[in-house]
Amino acid sequence: MDILEGIYTRRSVREFTGEGVTRDEALEMVKAGSWAPSGLNNQPWRFVIVRDPEVKSGLARLTSYGRILEEASVAIAVFLDRSSMYHEAKDHQAIGACLQNMLLAAHAMGLGAVWLGEILKNAPAVIGLLGAPENLELMAVIAVGRPKRAERVSNRKRPEELIVKEL
Amino acid sequence: MDILEGIYTRRSVREFTGEGVTRDEALEMVKAGSWAPSGLNNQPWRFVIVRDPEVKSGLARLTSYGRILEEASVAIAVFLDRSSMYHEAKDHQAIGACLQNMLLAAHAMGLGAVWLGEILKNAPAVIGLLGAPENLELMAVIAVGRPKRAERVSNRKRPEELIVKEL
Repeated sequence: MDILEGIYTRRSVREFTGEGVTRDEALEMVKAGSWAPSGLNNQPWRFVIVRDPEVKSGLARLTSYGRILEEASVAIAVFLDRSSMYHEAKDHQAIGACLQNMLLAAHAMGLGAVWLGEILKNAPAVIGLLGAPENLELMAVIAVGRPKRAERVSNRKRPEELIVKEL
Repeated sequence: MDILEGIYTRRSVREFTGEGVTRDEALEMVKAGSWAPSGLNNQPWRFVIVRDPEVKSGLARLTSYGRILEEASVAIAVFLDRSSMYHEAKDHQAIGACLQNMLLAAHAMGLGAVWLGEILKNAPAVIGLLGAPENLELMAVIAVGRPKRAERVSNRKRPEELIVKEL
């Protein structure tokens, strides 16, 4: 799939078939994420891959979007390694670039994925459940599965609303 | 170019030929950025496209990487619209996803680009120079041009260093 086509056709996928996501596919998403740019190339992203149904259900109970995680084959928790940080806003941006690469990679492989941010409200419980080290700060959880149907409806502001000036 | 190939071959490009970047190419980058995901689909990104040599030189004087901006054909300043914000960390992540889409789009079009974050140290002067409205907070400037040479050397941590656990 062409890059621009991929960027324009990627959607948040929230309904999955029962079919599984392979370990190699999850690792490809992580690899794609890791090739995002970061300030000073500090690569502050860290990952926990969750396939175990009990742990995944535990995660599901920590978000209002639990059904999505229950249906998903794999959850990938993305963390910021605070010991690698150099600038909070720039590190958060780098994590966002990493997440976008992961979502695009999933789309490229025919998988569906959605970036779950609301679960951050329960970040300490997520970290406890996953047994993540203390230097890691939860940034997002990505739910991944095989898309149940093509979800193609989304919308964006027009360029005239977004481009403030051309100089 | 295939999405995964694009993700893995994209590099920060810091040396440009004198050849120009068209307005349509710059607009395509902005469009690609705007198709990033954002929390609540709040689309907090805003853009100022700078092609005017004097303004671009003004920007160049505000960063230690001024040579890159002098050589670049276009600079795109990316802002966070504070009046669209809902959660600082998540909004910064969304901007990062937007920036990554822009960089991938540039790569897909055969352009070279680099994400400049160091210029944030002079954010107020950048905002003054560009005459950006008060609700906008500078997030990054992307320098864009035609790559002078293939720059292919970069490195990333191995997956074993990044994947903390598999559950």
